[in-house]
Amino acid sequence: MRYGIAVFPPKRIQDEANSYRKRYDPHYALIPPHITVKEPFEAEDSQIDNEIIPELKRIAKHSKPFKFNINKVSSFSPATNTIYLKVNPSEEIVSLNEKLHEGVLPDNKEYSFVPHITIAQKLSDEEFSDVYGRLQMLKFDLEEKIDRFQLLYQLENGTWSVYETFRFGE
Amino acid sequence: MRYGIAVFPPKRIQDEANSYRKRYDPHYALIPPHITVKEPFEAEDSQIDNEIIPELKRIAKHSKPFKFNINKVSSFSPATNTIYLKVNPSEEIVSLNEKLHEGVLPDNKEYSFVPHITIAQKLSDEEFSDVYGRLQMLKFDLEEKIDRFQLLYQLENGTWSVYETFRFGE
Repeated sequence: MRYGIAVFPPKRIQDEANSYRKRYDPHYALIPPHITVKEPFEAEDSQIDNEIIPELKRIAKHSKPFKFNINKVSSFSPATNTIYLKVNPSEEIVSLNEKLHEGVLPDNKEYSFVPHITIAQKLSDEEFSDVYGRLQMLKFDLEEKIDRFQLLYQLENGTWSVYETFRFGE
Repeated sequence: MRYGIAVFPPKRIQDEANSYRKRYDPHYALIPPHITVKEPFEAEDSQIDNEIIPELKRIAKHSKPFKFNINKVSSFSPATNTIYLKVNPSEEIVSLNEKLHEGVLPDNKEYSFVPHITIAQKLSDEEFSDVYGRLQMLKFDLEEKIDRFQLLYQLENGTWSVYETFRFGE
């Protein structure tokens, strides 16, 4: 099965992100707004239950809740036309991402980690210029706490279903 | 905020349900296929963190994983035109539903509990007769395990986001 690990930000940030995703993100209906902390990977059910979940529990137990800030919109252009709410990278989130690629956990890291919440993707070049031109002007002053991450698996229709929550310090 | 409690069945049952939901359920994109074990209720964040989550943990800790079977499609007609995969009611699931309405947990039970996975709703009377006529003929032989439930909250766009997972026996 195909699994992934994400942090779902608090409701007010999900609502803010959805106000853009609704128009600009074809994945809008597949998963709520999120910060991907481990890209999708394939794993057997037995591996998930016997190796991966125990390791995720250890990682969560040894992590402490931390704050994150969002101040602006950024983009992966020219690599892709993805536009996102930029999550200011903190030591804690970078460290969480690293731990999720070590030991028994598959090292499926393809790019350097840029914490973000996607709000637009798969736009044509023309749409991208137009939309990014406008969203780039936005300023945010959002500060929220991260105190958990979630292991999800993907259904046949492409949507993601949460399998388990891992709370920091537990 | 508006919260609800659901059990997400294993992937193969979610995929089966989605094959019908895609065509017949306008809530298809709002939440993956699920068994509602507590209908939506309003609660303050502080109440969730200080009272409700500790109680849900206690309930999960004192529950044991149990099996459930799906053998056929049924409907809430004539009350509503909802069509669902009928989850054979077991002592365990009925007891779980009861515990989720006791003590500090809001007693927001309006109907007697009929465990089910909705696959079609809000159909016109004509569509309903046609679709239910066909789906009623289906026979299933699905047996799966329930070993967790999830607390969700609803976003402004109507979709549901998982806040926390509660595993039985933990």
